[in-house]
Formats: sequence, C-alpha cells, structure tokens
Amino acid sequence: MSGWLKIIGLGAGNRQFLTPQAQEILHSATDIVGYETYVNMVPSFIQAKRHASDNGVEVERSEYALELAAGGAKVAVVSGGDAGVFGMAAAVFEAVAQNPGKWLGLDIEVIPGITALLAVAARIGAPLGHDFCVVSLSDYLKPWEIIRKRLIAASEGDFVLAIYNPASKTRREQLKDAIDILTGLRGGETIAIVATNVGRQQEKITITRLSAIDTEIITMQSMLIIGSSHTRLIERGQGAEPWVFTPRFYKPNP
Amino acid sequence: MSGWLKIIGLGAGNRQFLTPQAQEILHSATDIVGYETYVNMVPSFIQAKRHASDNGVEVERSEYALELAAGGAKVAVVSGGDAGVFGMAAAVFEAVAQNPGKWLGLDIEVIPGITALLAVAARIGAPLGHDFCVVSLSDYLKPWEIIRKRLIAASEGDFVLAIYNPASKTRREQLKDAIDILTGLRGGETIAIVATNVGRQQEKITITRLSAIDTEIITMQSMLIIGSSHTRLIERGQGAEPWVFTPRFYKPNP
Repeated sequence: MSGWLKIIGLGAGNRQFLTPQAQEILHSATDIVGYETYVNMVPSFIQAKRHASDNGVEVERSEYALELAAGGAKVAVVSGGDAGVFGMAAAVFEAVAQNPGKWLGLDIEVIPGITALLAVAARIGAPLGHDFCVVSLSDYLKPWEIIRKRLIAASEGDFVLAIYNPASKTRREQLKDAIDILTGLRGGETIAIVATNVGRQQEKITITRLSAIDTEIITMQSMLIIGSSHTRLIERGQGAEPWVFTPRFYKPNP
Repeated sequence: MSGWLKIIGLGAGNRQFLTPQAQEILHSATDIVGYETYVNMVPSFIQAKRHASDNGVEVERSEYALELAAGGAKVAVVSGGDAGVFGMAAAVFEAVAQNPGKWLGLDIEVIPGITALLAVAARIGAPLGHDFCVVSLSDYLKPWEIIRKRLIAASEGDFVLAIYNPASKTRREQLKDAIDILTGLRGGETIAIVATNVGRQQEKITITRLSAIDTEIITMQSMLIIGSSHTRLIERGQGAEPWVFTPRFYKPNP
C-alpha cells in the first residue's frame, strides 16, 4: 500500500496564502478530511473525495483519516491557517499516541501554512516586531486557571499577546475576565486589535485600546492582538487606519 | 508617481513555502531590497534590480527602500520567513515613525510568509499544539535583563518556547545563560529541539533534552523549540526520529 496522511494548513482565509507545497499535495490527494468550513476552503478544481465533519470531533476525525491512509488512500487533513497552531496536527498525533503500534509505519507529514496571527499582523503593520506569546482562550480542553496564569505570565514578561479562540456563541464570560486581567496588568490605554474573518471577503479589523474593546463584535472567527508597553501607532490621517508596530529595540519603562 | 513598497516574507528557506501573493509581487516589482542572504533567495527568473546590503543596517536599508518607492519604484523589501517576525517589517515602520510626515502618502503593505517557527514545528510533528511564546535571544537591540525576564515568565506560564537568534559567532554566553535558566525552571528532561537551516538543503534538526543540548551546533541559522511540561515524544523506531507533540488538552501536573 502507498497511502499517506498529510496535515495541511490552507492559510488564513485567502487562497493567495496557499503555498505551492500545499497546492501540490491537494492535487495528489485522493481524499480530503476536515472540519466542514476548511474542507469548503479547498479550491473546487481539486478532484479528491471530500469528508467533512463537525467541529469538536478532532480525534475521531484523525482516526478516520489514519484508517483511510492505512487502507492505501492519499489523505490530506486540512486546517485553516497553520495546522500546527490550534489546528489538526496535534489531534492527529494524539490519536497516534493513543495507539502507537498501530500507525508507526504510516507516512505522516505536516505542511505549514500562514496562521491567522501572521495574516492579521501583516494587515496592520508590524505588531509582532518583538517577542510575543500566543494563547487560545478556549477552556474546552484546559482549565481556565492555566489560561489565567498564562495571561498573567505574558503580561509580566511584557510580551505582545495574540489570542486565538477568544469567544464562541456560548463562551462569553472568559473573554470579559481575560480583558479585565489584561487591563489591570497592562493598563487600559494598551493597544488592542480585534480581527474577524481575516483573509476573507468579510474581513473586519478594528484598532482600539484595551479599555475600549467592544466584545459584542468578537466571534468564533475573531482573534485579538494585545500590544506590549512598547507597541505604538503611526497615524496616517485622511481616513486611513493607523499603522501598528512594536519596535525591535526595547528600553525599560521609567 | 505610482511607486509602492511591499515588505515580503519569502518563507523559511524553501521555495515551496513562497505564497502566490508573494510571487505575484516579486513579478511586478522593479526593485528588490534586502539583506544579501534573502535577496539571493529570490528566484533567478525575477527580473527586478537587486539591492543587497549587509546585516545590521535595517533602518538605513528601510530608508533607502522608502526613497526608491517615493521616487516611483515598485519596491519589494524581502525577509526570510515572515517579515513581521524578527524581519524587516518593524524596521520599515521604525523608519516611517522617525519622519512620519515624509512617508504618509506612500503605499506600504506587508505580505506574510512561513516563519521558521512554523516550518520547524511541521518537520517534527506538532510541538505548538498548545499555547507558546516566541523570543529573540539577541541583546543587540534590547537589554539582556528583559530577555531573562521573558524566559522566566514563559516558564512560569508553562508555555512552549520558540527561540530565534539563539547565538552568533561572537554572541555565545547568552545562550548558555538562557539554557541554565530554562533548565533550572523546567528541568533538564524537558524536550528541546535544535533546528538549523530549516527548509534549506543543509537542514539539520536534532530532538534532544534541555540538559543534553550541544551548544556547539547552534549558529546564526538555528532556532530552538523548548517544550512545556506536557510536550512529549512518540517513538517510531527503525532509525526514524520520534514525533514531537504538545497535546491540546492540559492537566495541571501533580
């Protein structure tokens, strides 16, 4: 059998981000497996059979993909952005680790993609010009206490902070708690970016301050970037949004 | 005048990572500006005039590129990986901020790329499956004290830690200090990855433990990934390197 399983990041929303490597794999795949939203992002000229599933069943989806590949299929497991950053890659290896003997001989590869963090940063300037942290605010798989601890640690280190999965339809209170913690530690004037549907037609990016974030506009498709003490704006005037950047140099605050 | 300046990430070493968006811009550019190593990464069929400069002159290079664009040139400023992650994007905005009135009308855009962090993670499994921090170890533009503070904060939050610019030919002591700090806080058994020249022909990736890192193999072209308390290996046997992954779920250590 010559099956394989490749876990691909499709890039953040926009086909302009789909790398040549990922394109080549999509062309040679016999089967595409993923969350419905991402399976639908695969260009329509790709002929492979599509297996779309619901959100929240990542390990089951991984086992299904592993079984297909073990049976000789050429399987592309797709994620938005980068599959290694809160995407399908960890779920596939969790499935492999649960039953390591079973899949050891299988040809598995991860193919990187443009994660939302990089796409959002590029749209607004260079907010990640300095050291940064990346946190998922979802407490579906980890306790809220470790998330709180990380928000505090990231603030103590004066890191720029990127927040994935800030809220869902039902998970709203954690976001308010997080903004309270960050405002207390960094100050309400800290620069904050709310980006929703980056790379898609409905893309909406708001540059604001921690104390002025409108949590109502934050959805499952949003991510946040919270500045460090050094992150700053360059006003452009004439109705244009300012540039946001974090200088490469760092002087301790007085 | 119809000049513009686009700051492009070429991806980590490998042309397979060069996005369609970045390719399109390289095709329409009249001038390419960058550190020699990255200018040489631009495919040879790109016809634009090349302006290569030495390392360490990022603001001067940015001003040169801005002047070219203001004069009507279509300028691609190139970085390896992603230009926003320890690349040229912050340097360009620093130059703009120093003299904001001068460049306000200029068409400036940042184009994301596959940064080394994502390329290395993909090669070895899914080490970034959970929250992570990214730190440059270079104290050329920031005091060593803030770097130490961040290594400590990232360890207190039990973040996976990616380290860019771990050492140069002359900057070696900081790396040893950093490994000492991290070993003290995370334990010598913590998983550590040393990746050099990722995406290039000379690529070399070593999966080891914090206490066993051979600092002699770490160069300007290296990056490190240090695991959290939950990062683990899946042994594959038969001479294959193990997979490395950080599960999406998190249980506090007893």
